[in-house]
Amino acid sequence: MGKVRVIEIHEDISAANERTAEAIREKMTQQGTLFLNVMSAPGSGKTTTLIALINALKDRYRIGVMDVDIQSTLDAQRVADATGVRSLQVHNGGLCHIDADMTARALAEYGTEDLDILFLENIGNLVCPAEFDTGAHRNIMLLSVPEGHDKPLKYPLMFRVSDLVLINKIDTLDYFDFDIALAEAYIRKLNPKAEILPMSAKTGEGLDRLVRWVELCKEQVTA
Amino acid sequence: MGKVRVIEIHEDISAANERTAEAIREKMTQQGTLFLNVMSAPGSGKTTTLIALINALKDRYRIGVMDVDIQSTLDAQRVADATGVRSLQVHNGGLCHIDADMTARALAEYGTEDLDILFLENIGNLVCPAEFDTGAHRNIMLLSVPEGHDKPLKYPLMFRVSDLVLINKIDTLDYFDFDIALAEAYIRKLNPKAEILPMSAKTGEGLDRLVRWVELCKEQVTA
Repeated sequence: MGKVRVIEIHEDISAANERTAEAIREKMTQQGTLFLNVMSAPGSGKTTTLIALINALKDRYRIGVMDVDIQSTLDAQRVADATGVRSLQVHNGGLCHIDADMTARALAEYGTEDLDILFLENIGNLVCPAEFDTGAHRNIMLLSVPEGHDKPLKYPLMFRVSDLVLINKIDTLDYFDFDIALAEAYIRKLNPKAEILPMSAKTGEGLDRLVRWVELCKEQVTA
Repeated sequence: MGKVRVIEIHEDISAANERTAEAIREKMTQQGTLFLNVMSAPGSGKTTTLIALINALKDRYRIGVMDVDIQSTLDAQRVADATGVRSLQVHNGGLCHIDADMTARALAEYGTEDLDILFLENIGNLVCPAEFDTGAHRNIMLLSVPEGHDKPLKYPLMFRVSDLVLINKIDTLDYFDFDIALAEAYIRKLNPKAEILPMSAKTGEGLDRLVRWVELCKEQVTA
């Protein structure tokens, strides 16, 4: 095996990613498309939440979805079947994240000019996606009750970069040791500005507040 | 910003990691320590399962634990408090995985010579940890019922590299749409040799089978 030289490229990658992300944001703002990035651990309910949210919004807005996964087209198909909106499955080559450059390529493939709101369902992971600005206007993350209220302490960056934290699956609070007040305190300490909304995508509890949050973002960003 | 040259170092990193992992495995075998790597998404119940398992084994074996996290010492403290065994918290500098080199440094810090069984509680993530052989004799992964039975389709590598898949939190099967037979079929298709054990770390259901699996590994590996 030959000798391998290692060079540090982190700062350049990060700066280039930030430039691409800003360019995406600017373009989406100009064309009037609110772009929302949805992140969580695997199985926290991103797809179910998006389906409920899109069905509550789709009569008033033209909506699109891009689903990022390592493999399978399950999520994109589920959203398309359940909402009728146009949905694109993005395979990210086995990586644990999607960066701004990959997002830009997916956006070009999708063709987003006619959309009022575009959702990016990120890969299920609490570490890597938090490190890459995708160019979305806002980051939404889901923490589900079965995961436990200690997750903000263990994955702090994800909670720092999120504008909205949905505490999902609150219909199961009786079956898990999850302290909502404690979770909120942990999140507020990391990110005092984050909005925190307890909800259940399954029962629809709290969905109205999520809908209003998205409507408000749409007004703020692309009015 | 200066021009940055990028070189491909993946193969060398992978080969070097494999060599280090093999060296760890050989050393652990020679000193009679069974080394088990435990992986899952965030909040699947790794820590609770380890506590129940260690308490069932600790009268017959000398046991140790290393907990990997980005931040906090919650898990290491919880295991130490609940089992009394020696526990080391490893902070991995914000990465989404631990590789064989980082594991080797943690093992040297710990001092494992007097242990019969050592558990590595990996970082909560279904992508990155699957890519790095840590030098453990066996990989255990947990898929918890609230996450959904489709996870093998979406994170296939994690299920391919695991010797034992624990389907955890089966006490909550009534509250989630989780089809155990379907999950097992998906897992078997990716990895026909994997052992699959439904269990609940909370109620103790299925724990006896996990204990027997570990005892059998101990006999096979270090007898």
